[in-house]
Amino acid sequence: MLHRFLPFLSWARVYSRADMTNDLIAAAVVTIMLVPQGMAYAMLAGLPPQAGLYGAMLPLLLYAAFGTSNALAVGPVAVVALMTAAAAGSVAEIGGPEYHLAALWIALLSGIMMLTLGLFKLGFLANFLSHPVISGFITAAGILIASSQLRHLLGADVSGKTLPEVIPSLVSNIGGLSPATLALSVVMLTFLFWSRAGLAKLLVRLGLSAPAAKLLGKTGLLIAVVGSTLAVWGFGLDQMGVASVGDIPRGLPQIGLPAFEFDLIHLLLAPAAMIAIVGYVESISIAQTLAAKKRQFIDPDRELVALGLANLGAGLSNAMPVTGGLSRSIVNYDAGAATPAAGAITAVLIGLAVLVLTPLMFYLPRATLAAIIIVAVFSLLDFRALPRTWSYSRADGAAMAATMAVTLLIGVEQGLLAGVGLSLLLYLYRTSRPHMAVVGQVPGTEHFRNVTRHAVVTDPAIFSIRVDESLYFPNARALEDRIVQALADTPALRHVVLQCGAVNYIDASALESLEAINERLDGAGVAFHLSEVKGPVMDQLNRSHFLHDLTGQVFLTQYDAMLALAPDLTRDCLTSERCETQLDKV
Amino acid sequence: MLHRFLPFLSWARVYSRADMTNDLIAAAVVTIMLVPQGMAYAMLAGLPPQAGLYGAMLPLLLYAAFGTSNALAVGPVAVVALMTAAAAGSVAEIGGPEYHLAALWIALLSGIMMLTLGLFKLGFLANFLSHPVISGFITAAGILIASSQLRHLLGADVSGKTLPEVIPSLVSNIGGLSPATLALSVVMLTFLFWSRAGLAKLLVRLGLSAPAAKLLGKTGLLIAVVGSTLAVWGFGLDQMGVASVGDIPRGLPQIGLPAFEFDLIHLLLAPAAMIAIVGYVESISIAQTLAAKKRQFIDPDRELVALGLANLGAGLSNAMPVTGGLSRSIVNYDAGAATPAAGAITAVLIGLAVLVLTPLMFYLPRATLAAIIIVAVFSLLDFRALPRTWSYSRADGAAMAATMAVTLLIGVEQGLLAGVGLSLLLYLYRTSRPHMAVVGQVPGTEHFRNVTRHAVVTDPAIFSIRVDESLYFPNARALEDRIVQALADTPALRHVVLQCGAVNYIDASALESLEAINERLDGAGVAFHLSEVKGPVMDQLNRSHFLHDLTGQVFLTQYDAMLALAPDLTRDCLTSERCETQLDKV
Repeated sequence: MLHRFLPFLSWARVYSRADMTNDLIAAAVVTIMLVPQGMAYAMLAGLPPQAGLYGAMLPLLLYAAFGTSNALAVGPVAVVALMTAAAAGSVAEIGGPEYHLAALWIALLSGIMMLTLGLFKLGFLANFLSHPVISGFITAAGILIASSQLRHLLGADVSGKTLPEVIPSLVSNIGGLSPATLALSVVMLTFLFWSRAGLAKLLVRLGLSAPAAKLLGKTGLLIAVVGSTLAVWGFGLDQMGVASVGDIPRGLPQIGLPAFEFDLIHLLLAPAAMIAIVGYVESISIAQTLAAKKRQFIDPDRELVALGLANLGAGLSNAMPVTGGLSRSIVNYDAGAATPAAGAITAVLIGLAVLVLTPLMFYLPRATLAAIIIVAVFSLLDFRALPRTWSYSRADGAAMAATMAVTLLIGVEQGLLAGVGLSLLLYLYRTSRPHMAVVGQVPGTEHFRNVTRHAVVTDPAIFSIRVDESLYFPNARALEDRIVQALADTPALRHVVLQCGAVNYIDASALESLEAINERLDGAGVAFHLSEVKGPVMDQLNRSHFLHDLTGQVFLTQYDAMLALAPDLTRDCLTSERCETQLDKV
Repeated sequence: MLHRFLPFLSWARVYSRADMTNDLIAAAVVTIMLVPQGMAYAMLAGLPPQAGLYGAMLPLLLYAAFGTSNALAVGPVAVVALMTAAAAGSVAEIGGPEYHLAALWIALLSGIMMLTLGLFKLGFLANFLSHPVISGFITAAGILIASSQLRHLLGADVSGKTLPEVIPSLVSNIGGLSPATLALSVVMLTFLFWSRAGLAKLLVRLGLSAPAAKLLGKTGLLIAVVGSTLAVWGFGLDQMGVASVGDIPRGLPQIGLPAFEFDLIHLLLAPAAMIAIVGYVESISIAQTLAAKKRQFIDPDRELVALGLANLGAGLSNAMPVTGGLSRSIVNYDAGAATPAAGAITAVLIGLAVLVLTPLMFYLPRATLAAIIIVAVFSLLDFRALPRTWSYSRADGAAMAATMAVTLLIGVEQGLLAGVGLSLLLYLYRTSRPHMAVVGQVPGTEHFRNVTRHAVVTDPAIFSIRVDESLYFPNARALEDRIVQALADTPALRHVVLQCGAVNYIDASALESLEAINERLDGAGVAFHLSEVKGPVMDQLNRSHFLHDLTGQVFLTQYDAMLALAPDLTRDCLTSERCETQLDKV
């Protein structure tokens, strides 16, 4: 029982020396990425660099204890950092005393929300976010993230949260750029993009074994950080306008509840909910992809609990909101992380770095961190997704385009809401028009098919209709409208037969609608019959008054219905020559 | 073409003397009800009595020109009046100068919204309101309407919009009631309840023909109004604390756009949208029920246009929001209204009443109007709906209970929103868990059925799963989870076959999910196959890259799939003795 809530009890008992070796190697590689990325994402969120480092300590320990993924690397990630900046920036001045407090409360609130959703098994709520909305949102967020780093890459005063703000700011401030900063940025970007694949190849050519080269190939970030820091220090680039990180407090973060400000917290509820959902969706899809490779299973609700606790830890340790990050998780997996202990070891290594290395980072240029962010978000951009989705489904394409446009032009929260709202509306629109077919008997058979696709026999006094969908409130009215229209169009009508073979469920709205149909048909002297009602649906109908009020009968098959209502026609049709001709209009 | 937009062009050309006679009789009967009801609903909405009378003039003319229902009687109705009071009361002091302005803007805004929805054919949005939510809302609104009339029935200062406000107010003010008012109320309520059925019976016993008695039986309201007015005037009841209507301006309403106040309008947008939706849903269901009796068809989108214009007319003529009312529509239908001209004639008769009769209404007691409201809303209350719905479906029952509780305890708008929100959430919850069955071959057949319900043959290396639902974003992840879990549970797994016979649609989210499943299975060395993919779904998949990336094949039938993947087992099973035994656990 306890194992269900504390997964580490399961793996800690069988933890072997081999596991430890694998986890140590993976943790070392992840740490090398996480130190610069953590500081970079803190900068992206508008927070001091240590917030990113702290975000890689207590949250990782908590995830290691409660998480179910062996490979997921939790910590600061780009999209959540951008959303944090948007939310904190809407309630406080960036750099001001309230700003970091807002970020901490975002972590606490989204942690509480994730925890609640997980404990109450409400992870399905993430289904509100359709793939096209998530995909469009992440691409648009990537563009906004990249544009937010222009100030650091150029050394110019470019500001703004959305494209309509950033572009004019860029145009009017481009003149004030720092040539030394720009030069450093170009070198860093070139090196980092090359090193993603090139470094490992170079190491192989230098004689290293392929696995060793692959591992050491991940040290591109480290080389960039060390090299550019030495360059600033050695060549005095800081005198030439290259901004650097500056003092980072040495030592471990203080643990404690941040100041409680009701008004601030109230304003942060909605953004925190969105950050919780986006963080969860991003994390769970990474964890599931990596788990499947080793045929392991991730429990979404337990992941929510673990991510919630990680964010609570972040909020209590002066850090920033966290979630599972794609690139570091893949590195963690490739480096052979065997258990969640890899994350715990990473946390310890980050702690050592904070204790020992922070003074050495004084001259680390912000342009290097910005370049690291650019390279990281580059993999988020998927511009081909929009035409691909559009050509597959107009509705999904429209939801994706709306999400991207609103995110880029108005803001991240609005973009997400617009996407979710539009996809729900379009979904409701589609669901409200289920596929319905008027059916007739295929000559020579007991089969009944769509009259517009097959040459079938029908009786003008009988209207047989098949609904290819369960009946529930979004579509309840559609069937009503269709049958009422048939009633108005067909003066000879005496019977309506609803073929229910595809109906798995009838909710109370649809039941009312069926009762209304029955009553309206009765008022016009037409009997209402059902055929092919499934067992569970019949059980459900038996709990209502509908079958008692039904003016017609419930038939086992459509054929039985026609045999009872139009016996001569139906028998003649059965014995007539079988005719498989399809009509032209398919 | 023009006929589509101006339906009256269709019926006006063939309008006969017989039609006119029928319409005149129906209009006369409706007018007798509408004069007191219009004033009563205006009082309910917190507006002067003439607002209700004006609401029965220009709006009725507009509906007669654009509406498609022959029987629908448009005008002030109780639930919309209550919602108007709630909305106007939230932005202005009742009785103050802003209050009527707010009501006019509610009519204009909801008119514009209905018109827009109708012109863009967005009537399906009303599907957001499930039947249990509407039904719970109307019962709760009925209770609130009745409780809002206590002040007029008792002549005591009872106030409040929700039960937690009304009940303490009633307890503390009951001592100040006016005995004469209470006595009059008891007489009026008794008479009105009796007259609903008793008056016509009495007239038959007095020798009238049954149809004439039925028509004259509708004059109960008129008798109550005339009798109580005479009583106040003759016995000087106004000196004994019986409040009466007082001065009503004589003459037709002035036409013009009300004062434009941006802040006020902004605050009224959300309530106006809710009033538009509730008014539309109430009206359309009445119109459809009555139309079906004569085998006529109501076009929901054109009804929206007509109701929208009627509300614009109400907003421009100093009236109040209107929609189709149940009781008057039934009377109109029963009295033989043949065309929408009946509504136009009603409007003219109401105009005559406003010109001639208003001075006579000076002594009309408010208690009589309150009694008329109580009798009218009595038919709205359906307390048995909740247990009935709950026993039919827990989810629908919960949505209904939440709607009722929030409406009664917090307010009408909140109640409606809570109901819609909860029913969407419960719907999403259900949809996110589609029925899935692991299937195996029924011995001696080519059929594949649920392994938990039938004695079937399966191969441990093959996982065949059938989904009984289209695949789209609310359930995309469910299939992914199920297959990934099977992958984790079944070490021998080599093939997964998805039987798609019940899948009518695959949206972009589900496509991504299928791609993720394919990729994850591939990572674990398992092939992914589809079977029984429908034609339109195949067309759709062909527009994507999925079939190209698919590691397995697409089989025409599940049998073909098994024949290819496990030929010996499948052939043996086919030739083995047919075994129809169902397993116990059904």
